[in-house]
Amino acid sequence: MIPTSPKIQFTLAELTKGLDVTVQGDSALVVTGIATITQALPHQITFLMNPRYKKYLAETGAAAVILTKDDSISCPVTSIISRDPYYTYAKIAAYFATPTHAEIGIHASAVVGQNCHIHKTASIGPHCVLGNHVTIGPNVVIGANCTLGDGSSVDEETYIDAGVTVYHEVIIKKRVHISSGTVIGSDGFGIAKHAGVWHKVPQLGRVIIEDDVEIGSNCSIDRGAIEDTVIGQGVKLDNLIQVGHNVRIGKHTAIAGCVAIAGSAIIGDNCLIGGGAGIGGHLRLADNVVITGMSAITHTIQDPGIYSSGAGGVVPNHKWRKNSVRLHHLDELVQRVKSLESVLKELTKE
Amino acid sequence: MIPTSPKIQFTLAELTKGLDVTVQGDSALVVTGIATITQALPHQITFLMNPRYKKYLAETGAAAVILTKDDSISCPVTSIISRDPYYTYAKIAAYFATPTHAEIGIHASAVVGQNCHIHKTASIGPHCVLGNHVTIGPNVVIGANCTLGDGSSVDEETYIDAGVTVYHEVIIKKRVHISSGTVIGSDGFGIAKHAGVWHKVPQLGRVIIEDDVEIGSNCSIDRGAIEDTVIGQGVKLDNLIQVGHNVRIGKHTAIAGCVAIAGSAIIGDNCLIGGGAGIGGHLRLADNVVITGMSAITHTIQDPGIYSSGAGGVVPNHKWRKNSVRLHHLDELVQRVKSLESVLKELTKE
Amino acid sequence: MIPTSPKIQFTLAELTKGLDVTVQGDSALVVTGIATITQALPHQITFLMNPRYKKYLAETGAAAVILTKDDSISCPVTSIISRDPYYTYAKIAAYFATPTHAEIGIHASAVVGQNCHIHKTASIGPHCVLGNHVTIGPNVVIGANCTLGDGSSVDEETYIDAGVTVYHEVIIKKRVHISSGTVIGSDGFGIAKHAGVWHKVPQLGRVIIEDDVEIGSNCSIDRGAIEDTVIGQGVKLDNLIQVGHNVRIGKHTAIAGCVAIAGSAIIGDNCLIGGGAGIGGHLRLADNVVITGMSAITHTIQDPGIYSSGAGGVVPNHKWRKNSVRLHHLDELVQRVKSLESVLKELTKE
Repeated sequence: MIPTSPKIQFTLAELTKGLDVTVQGDSALVVTGIATITQALPHQITFLMNPRYKKYLAETGAAAVILTKDDSISCPVTSIISRDPYYTYAKIAAYFATPTHAEIGIHASAVVGQNCHIHKTASIGPHCVLGNHVTIGPNVVIGANCTLGDGSSVDEETYIDAGVTVYHEVIIKKRVHISSGTVIGSDGFGIAKHAGVWHKVPQLGRVIIEDDVEIGSNCSIDRGAIEDTVIGQGVKLDNLIQVGHNVRIGKHTAIAGCVAIAGSAIIGDNCLIGGGAGIGGHLRLADNVVITGMSAITHTIQDPGIYSSGAGGVVPNHKWRKNSVRLHHLDELVQRVKSLESVLKELTKE
Repeated sequence: MIPTSPKIQFTLAELTKGLDVTVQGDSALVVTGIATITQALPHQITFLMNPRYKKYLAETGAAAVILTKDDSISCPVTSIISRDPYYTYAKIAAYFATPTHAEIGIHASAVVGQNCHIHKTASIGPHCVLGNHVTIGPNVVIGANCTLGDGSSVDEETYIDAGVTVYHEVIIKKRVHISSGTVIGSDGFGIAKHAGVWHKVPQLGRVIIEDDVEIGSNCSIDRGAIEDTVIGQGVKLDNLIQVGHNVRIGKHTAIAGCVAIAGSAIIGDNCLIGGGAGIGGHLRLADNVVITGMSAITHTIQDPGIYSSGAGGVVPNHKWRKNSVRLHHLDELVQRVKSLESVLKELTKE
Repeated sequence: MIPTSPKIQFTLAELTKGLDVTVQGDSALVVTGIATITQALPHQITFLMNPRYKKYLAETGAAAVILTKDDSISCPVTSIISRDPYYTYAKIAAYFATPTHAEIGIHASAVVGQNCHIHKTASIGPHCVLGNHVTIGPNVVIGANCTLGDGSSVDEETYIDAGVTVYHEVIIKKRVHISSGTVIGSDGFGIAKHAGVWHKVPQLGRVIIEDDVEIGSNCSIDRGAIEDTVIGQGVKLDNLIQVGHNVRIGKHTAIAGCVAIAGSAIIGDNCLIGGGAGIGGHLRLADNVVITGMSAITHTIQDPGIYSSGAGGVVPNHKWRKNSVRLHHLDELVQRVKSLESVLKELTKE
């Protein structure tokens, strides 16, 4: 049912051109695809990064393997030797990705407001709706069924997939990629209780997405309350992530799926946040902080390092129930141990 | 404000036709709707499954009750006796569901690419956008404002609700149902750090949704990195679920809302995963594993059974804070108990 | 790149008109914007609510500060004295919010079904799709690319942002605001296992959204199984929240991002639920219950108060791993302490 792709084939020389690698073997070898080390066929290329897979190297059916110099010693086929095989793989795999066929220009079914500046090399997909004063830069691709609010701007080489909503005055910079279903610039959760009733606090800030950011699908990134919400350069967000108002995420931080970041949190550069973690409001994570998955972060972390919370490790439910009950009496247990210690101290004194 | 439905009424004989049940009472009785056991009116049908509700049976105002043979003894009205009352209810309730009025054919506002094969009995809703080489089977319904990428296919009797995004080369098989806001086939979270900067790893795999799968709203199902992401036959997913790249979910597994499944996890057949749970990357769950809600699964589970993690049970916050602090000194407490034990051992030796 | 806003300026007298505040200083002062206390410029207004920011008051560059009578004593500029500065700020900030430019009427690209009643003052955005028998009240705004199902209704002054999906027969009342990507009325997660296979249980109920509700982006609110799912008056929901079928949320309850509420839970009035919490199915929270972030609520809470679960407090990972292991032997530790106690009791008896 899948349409036949145009015949894709490259020599190893073509694939490795410009990369800091050494081909040990025949660089005129032609490959037609990529596969895992255990499944690769004689015209496919594969890679070895995870040591757990080294045992499959001797048996691989691949034409060539991207790997380190050390691993290449036991490689039975052509080696593409790299100091960083996963990065080399990423670069080579790009040759085999399905090309995007975005047509340049504004689709006839798109609705475009007044005073927009849309670069002639940009692609605006079918049924997109752009407000007034929207700016779209060179080589931008906006997928089908997207909505961009008044005064928003999208800078050059940015790709926005189908079904994304961008609110008014959101700034999206260069080479950003946003996946479907993501919402950028909705009102932050600002509410003030007065006389028993919640009143909306207007959200006057914007969202700024810096260069080279990647955002997964179905994320919610709120606009700032007064100042802006800022996603720093090179940040990578997975899917279903909540970014509250006024949050600032530092450069090159990567955040896995289903993370909830409450309002006004400040996250440093080069952090890694595991899936399902929650970051409390108005706190700071220093640069180079790693948070393990599903941790609840309730206070500021000032030093780089790996941090966790929660009661880790899955156990059979009957055992877990017993220990969980005990947990709720832990303070009493500590008191009991204290009593024991003082009684024993008295005893041993004698 | 709701439009008057067409008059819906059925006899018990009509409703139970083909079902493995016994009507104890008048099967010519006419019912016009379904309600809960406490709220049912004299022309409505109800069911009894949860033992907690048995106390309401004697007083029910319903015309008839779907229940087990044992429960039927105390049923004051007509009994529909079933070995599986909830299943029987599911089948009978279908008669009272609001019928979908999808018009056959491609809506004039839809945008359809080149070389698509759309069956003449399919319905493509208003403002849908289909790429090139899309295949749509018999009796498929695609709701309004959906986007389907190049080379995607949707097989017979599948329903896709409004506002769903399906990326290129995604395969959706027969009798699948997908709710609004769900995104299928977005890029997996593949990133490689090189020289301090994250580089995108192209995501070359597809997503395959097998027959009879049901997917709730606002889910994110990523395409595979090299191999495919596969949702097995009969799998049921609730809302806001993240399925990472390369994940494989076995047949007839059911997953509740807000579960996060990290990349390359393999989940067995007939599993049950509670709401808010997190499944780590590159691990396996055996068949017939049950995970309780909000558990963090960080290693492979090889045997069937019920598993949990976390510190369960909600308690008043002041008590919780005291015990939580103690938890972070639990290892020291164990050391203190060890010391006590050795001192006592010495003492009692004497 | 942002379009120049129309010149916005107000005197303090204009901004405080009708509010229960006292201007201490020149109420003819003109302000042109709002900023934080540390960043405000001489023509901007700011506010002081959080005691942590009081230290910046003496140095503020603002024209005027909204604050309490007590704080006004040390205010170097014009004071706007309020018993509730945050509420006063909310009201004043509304003057500086970007006005919505929704055009009255039905956009030419919208697709509207049969027998709809759309008030002449309502705005239906581009590429919206309305089913049959849809009712839209006065001054309602439906953003671009929304879908509203058959028999749904939206009452006066309600705003629905772009890209929202509302299923059939959903009732949305007055002055409601719904952000993008939210799905209301999708089928609840009702499945019945029979002969090893899950069968769908038809979801026959509706969703009712009462007056003055606010719902964030990418939320999923399921329709009821038999009765309705009800979001009570004045409820405020943040982003990415799951509300299962039959759930009832009481008046003026506020729920932070990424909360998962399982089916048939009943939540009281005036509750506060922290981000990332999970509320189990078929349980009740009393009025005035506060749940701290990321708690797992597994049983009914009958009394007002603050409740928590989980093992709080983030710690360095190496420490956490040690304590987490101990947690899984907590029951054994309790037994060891018991033994110690009885041995000691024997010893001290002598």
